[in-house]
Amino acid sequence: MPDVVVIMGSSSDLPKIQPCIDTLKKLGISHEVRVMSAHRTPDLVLSYIGSAEQRGVKVVIAAAGGAAHLAGVSAAHTLLPVIGIPVESSALKGIDSLLSTIQMPGGIPVATVGIGSGGATNAALLAAQIIALNDDQLKKRLLENRQASRQKVIDDDAAINAQ
Amino acid sequence: MPDVVVIMGSSSDLPKIQPCIDTLKKLGISHEVRVMSAHRTPDLVLSYIGSAEQRGVKVVIAAAGGAAHLAGVSAAHTLLPVIGIPVESSALKGIDSLLSTIQMPGGIPVATVGIGSGGATNAALLAAQIIALNDDQLKKRLLENRQASRQKVIDDDAAINAQ
Amino acid sequence: MPDVVVIMGSSSDLPKIQPCIDTLKKLGISHEVRVMSAHRTPDLVLSYIGSAEQRGVKVVIAAAGGAAHLAGVSAAHTLLPVIGIPVESSALKGIDSLLSTIQMPGGIPVATVGIGSGGATNAALLAAQIIALNDDQLKKRLLENRQASRQKVIDDDAAINAQ
Amino acid sequence: MPDVVVIMGSSSDLPKIQPCIDTLKKLGISHEVRVMSAHRTPDLVLSYIGSAEQRGVKVVIAAAGGAAHLAGVSAAHTLLPVIGIPVESSALKGIDSLLSTIQMPGGIPVATVGIGSGGATNAALLAAQIIALNDDQLKKRLLENRQASRQKVIDDDAAINAQ
Amino acid sequence: MPDVVVIMGSSSDLPKIQPCIDTLKKLGISHEVRVMSAHRTPDLVLSYIGSAEQRGVKVVIAAAGGAAHLAGVSAAHTLLPVIGIPVESSALKGIDSLLSTIQMPGGIPVATVGIGSGGATNAALLAAQIIALNDDQLKKRLLENRQASRQKVIDDDAAINAQ
Amino acid sequence: MPDVVVIMGSSSDLPKIQPCIDTLKKLGISHEVRVMSAHRTPDLVLSYIGSAEQRGVKVVIAAAGGAAHLAGVSAAHTLLPVIGIPVESSALKGIDSLLSTIQMPGGIPVATVGIGSGGATNAALLAAQIIALNDDQLKKRLLENRQASRQKVIDDDAAINAQ
Amino acid sequence: MPDVVVIMGSSSDLPKIQPCIDTLKKLGISHEVRVMSAHRTPDLVLSYIGSAEQRGVKVVIAAAGGAAHLAGVSAAHTLLPVIGIPVESSALKGIDSLLSTIQMPGGIPVATVGIGSGGATNAALLAAQIIALNDDQLKKRLLENRQASRQKVIDDDAAINAQ
Amino acid sequence: MPDVVVIMGSSSDLPKIQPCIDTLKKLGISHEVRVMSAHRTPDLVLSYIGSAEQRGVKVVIAAAGGAAHLAGVSAAHTLLPVIGIPVESSALKGIDSLLSTIQMPGGIPVATVGIGSGGATNAALLAAQIIALNDDQLKKRLLENRQASRQKVIDDDAAINAQ
Repeated sequence: MPDVVVIMGSSSDLPKIQPCIDTLKKLGISHEVRVMSAHRTPDLVLSYIGSAEQRGVKVVIAAAGGAAHLAGVSAAHTLLPVIGIPVESSALKGIDSLLSTIQMPGGIPVATVGIGSGGATNAALLAAQIIALNDDQLKKRLLENRQASRQKVIDDDAAINAQ
Repeated sequence: MPDVVVIMGSSSDLPKIQPCIDTLKKLGISHEVRVMSAHRTPDLVLSYIGSAEQRGVKVVIAAAGGAAHLAGVSAAHTLLPVIGIPVESSALKGIDSLLSTIQMPGGIPVATVGIGSGGATNAALLAAQIIALNDDQLKKRLLENRQASRQKVIDDDAAINAQ
Repeated sequence: MPDVVVIMGSSSDLPKIQPCIDTLKKLGISHEVRVMSAHRTPDLVLSYIGSAEQRGVKVVIAAAGGAAHLAGVSAAHTLLPVIGIPVESSALKGIDSLLSTIQMPGGIPVATVGIGSGGATNAALLAAQIIALNDDQLKKRLLENRQASRQKVIDDDAAINAQ
Repeated sequence: MPDVVVIMGSSSDLPKIQPCIDTLKKLGISHEVRVMSAHRTPDLVLSYIGSAEQRGVKVVIAAAGGAAHLAGVSAAHTLLPVIGIPVESSALKGIDSLLSTIQMPGGIPVATVGIGSGGATNAALLAAQIIALNDDQLKKRLLENRQASRQKVIDDDAAINAQ
Repeated sequence: MPDVVVIMGSSSDLPKIQPCIDTLKKLGISHEVRVMSAHRTPDLVLSYIGSAEQRGVKVVIAAAGGAAHLAGVSAAHTLLPVIGIPVESSALKGIDSLLSTIQMPGGIPVATVGIGSGGATNAALLAAQIIALNDDQLKKRLLENRQASRQKVIDDDAAINAQ
Repeated sequence: MPDVVVIMGSSSDLPKIQPCIDTLKKLGISHEVRVMSAHRTPDLVLSYIGSAEQRGVKVVIAAAGGAAHLAGVSAAHTLLPVIGIPVESSALKGIDSLLSTIQMPGGIPVATVGIGSGGATNAALLAAQIIALNDDQLKKRLLENRQASRQKVIDDDAAINAQ
Repeated sequence: MPDVVVIMGSSSDLPKIQPCIDTLKKLGISHEVRVMSAHRTPDLVLSYIGSAEQRGVKVVIAAAGGAAHLAGVSAAHTLLPVIGIPVESSALKGIDSLLSTIQMPGGIPVATVGIGSGGATNAALLAAQIIALNDDQLKKRLLENRQASRQKVIDDDAAINAQ
Repeated sequence: MPDVVVIMGSSSDLPKIQPCIDTLKKLGISHEVRVMSAHRTPDLVLSYIGSAEQRGVKVVIAAAGGAAHLAGVSAAHTLLPVIGIPVESSALKGIDSLLSTIQMPGGIPVATVGIGSGGATNAALLAAQIIALNDDQLKKRLLENRQASRQKVIDDDAAINAQ
């Protein structure tokens, strides 16, 4: 009964969303990673996402590229917050993925993050921030994570000036 | 038991796909026009498109704007040819609609036509050309239609030069 | 002590985010609407957003156009979920707003919704879905809202076919 | 007397449309692959496409890049369904190919698929779906193909979770 | 036996290329204006452009919008210089017209001018500059035209500073 | 006293315009290749292009990338036809080069060709077509060149089908 | 002997750069507004900008649209800071103006501001900030201006919440 | 107490702005290079940029990629001229960086330079041109630099023609 489910439209997307999975792990958030397709296994998306809330899932993360319908289709089947990761596509570099994830009609929101590894990391952080509204331990780990990212900038700055 | 079903994601798309409906009428193709949404009524899309083939439908035309998932989601539920009309959207002028309709993953094709009224007309003609592969009467009407469009260019040319 | 704060970079953005405010009202979510600018009143953004969590705010919604830094700058000052609305800009139609809201570096997520009125509505719904994770009454209103949007599609479909 | 003819504007396009040819083979659809150019051999396009219908061809697939006129020019010479594959171009990554294939004027439809290998595969599947309207054996093979693509997603999902 | 032929893909393009026609008139260049379509009357384009050189035509100007194939198709049928005017299209504002006119494969050049009224004017001037290589009277009128356009800037400057 | 001058904004553009130079050589057109910059040596552009006509030059070809002003600035200094080659740029792949070459104001035309090697070849062919209006020998070589490019398509077609 | 010269490529650009002129006036910066064209009056640009420094000018502001060469050409003729305003163009909404102003080769900088009225205002403010490095009175007026723009946000916020 | 401060949003941007640093060195301009982030260390940006003027800094250069807020946020904290370098981003090649740096609201200018190494060089030159308004020695070095860049074009021209 994970807090977060991460679904991707194709197993070839896995390396691109690895930063999301790594961040969920680092923050100690229970999660499940699944491959399922809005077009090739629509019934599985429906049953998996449609039942997520009653299985105790809190946030859905959906990653897809090209005509990226997975996040929007998931959002149609649940009232849980759905976060969309637009995966960088081969020819159009993810502009297609971004627009087909984010330009949802009024009524069915998808919380979209950026194309690329920063976006994948941020999907996990966003899920964490949502869950942390009712989880002080997680909130604390988020704070530590942000302080660490702050410290990294400061260290990088020092390193550059030490050269 | 129409030959063609035309579905649109929102009733506000109706004026933009009117040229499609008008062309189907002009060519004498039986058709049904329905409003259904990949996100707001996904179950209706599934049952309507999923059963279209056994109801004798030959071609599905799906029109939507923005994160336009309707054609792709329809294509996931049938082996009938699905034609996608990317409806011109307000801010991005249909580039979002076009990319989210056409950039489908290998396995689930959507025959996409252009943004705008030419595209809507062409969706109907494309459906007609498909059906006409086994309908000589329709083929004849298509030929007449093409000859008329040819004659219109010739008449316009004469009119301009008569001025 | 509202659950949601809605900030916009300029009072001229107000008509464009009205669907967000209307949706928050309709769902009975307590909220506050403020004008503040990442560039003209950065200290006010810092103090307002920096203290939002301890004032009991649960979700921040930030709307801006052009070089739209407001959501990202807000997200830098809080661990609350921040939702960004890219306001349609005059020349570039919101592509600038969208990219400068969504392409955040890893570490500081902004949950971005689409350009246009659908996006504004969805920002409110997304905030509601987040809050509803711990508010069954709100969850119920969300469900009713979704059922109503579903019914509207069905009614529109009937209306078109009644003509 | 093949069911499908595949034409490309340059022999350098061959690797990019190989997935189309492979899929036609896999589905057992008779086909012919030809190099001909809308600009360098327009008369050959005219005679080849203009006579395709009476030679028993059912579907034309045309692939080209850049100012990709091949599909549109073909469509002008036949009432058969013409499927356009926009080949990824060097500088502009196929956006030029896509727009010059799809934005056809009302009257001359081109059924356009996506840029990239998914699009090439889908061109073949689309041709198959059209032909299968009157070919139950092919319809069966299409169904098996779709079930296999579905099974592949399920297997990939299992493989990822077995790690 | 005009020096320049101006062809357009649709009579609706006429207002957009009027600056071209006006400039040809102003420069005293004999010309003919015709409506013909690469898709609806391809045979007429072939016979008209294919015989233009032997009829004494020196330059072909072709204007079209959307999937604008007219200039490229014309260029395939003649060794005369062909100038392409990308007509501003409704949804995509002429980016489609521009790319489908200019991105020609090596071997078949189209001298493309800009989208909009400046481009239409420049198509005529470019034709004039080509013809003037062997027409000193026309060269003189071109020089006067350029001096007038220079004087207009100087007069506008004076007018603004006189306010 | 060459018939054609080819200027480029930077010596780093040389490999990208080599197809232009090669084509001029192949067609036996006298030409001169020069590096000069609209921004770093504007006076040299002015004196070189400004005197080109009286030195007997017939066509100017100007290649540049990024904010590609060279063709437009050249066109401002001569009444000879100026052909612009938009050189593919590093980040934006030549879209910047294309737009800054082609979108000239009414009055100062630049005959623009496509981004990439096809465009470079076509610049030379376009120059040749212009010069050939009064050079039957060159016209003959152009015809042979086009027949060869036609034959190459036919040979490629045969080669693919011989496999 | 103004501190700032503002040049525009066409008198039709005047309304679009009015916010620049108004801001210069409001800040009490001496300035001159001139119409001159990189293409139609290049010699006037050269003599005017080339002599600006010795006439005591401190900053050049150049506004143009389309293939906007005016700022870059000006920058080639002076070592004064040159600020470029990309004027919104008719078809492409200023993307052409922006890219042809900003993508200058290394060596000749243009300080570019945004498309639209905000950009025009900012061109004046940027000139003021440069001049204010050695003008404490102007610095003071700049500070007052910024405080006023800050106060306007605060007042707008109050007004919205007073409703 | 350097004349110029160069800040970058991430140490990974360092190679991309090296041409800026190299040019500052070559021109003998005192400068400081710092890593600081608008999102991860906003307080450090505020204190560093907010106090820059009183520490004697004359120009701020800020480089960032993606949702590049660093230049705009810096500009909000100072009346010094702020130059923005849009760093080429991974997926979108810097179009996101460019638009989020340049499309600032009226009131807070950012002097933006181009994407890529030319832009980085130009940021340094622009800072130098601003400082040189009151530094004749630097003005002389700028003049020498420009003459050298002019000479390089002339030498490259000679080298190409010597081959």
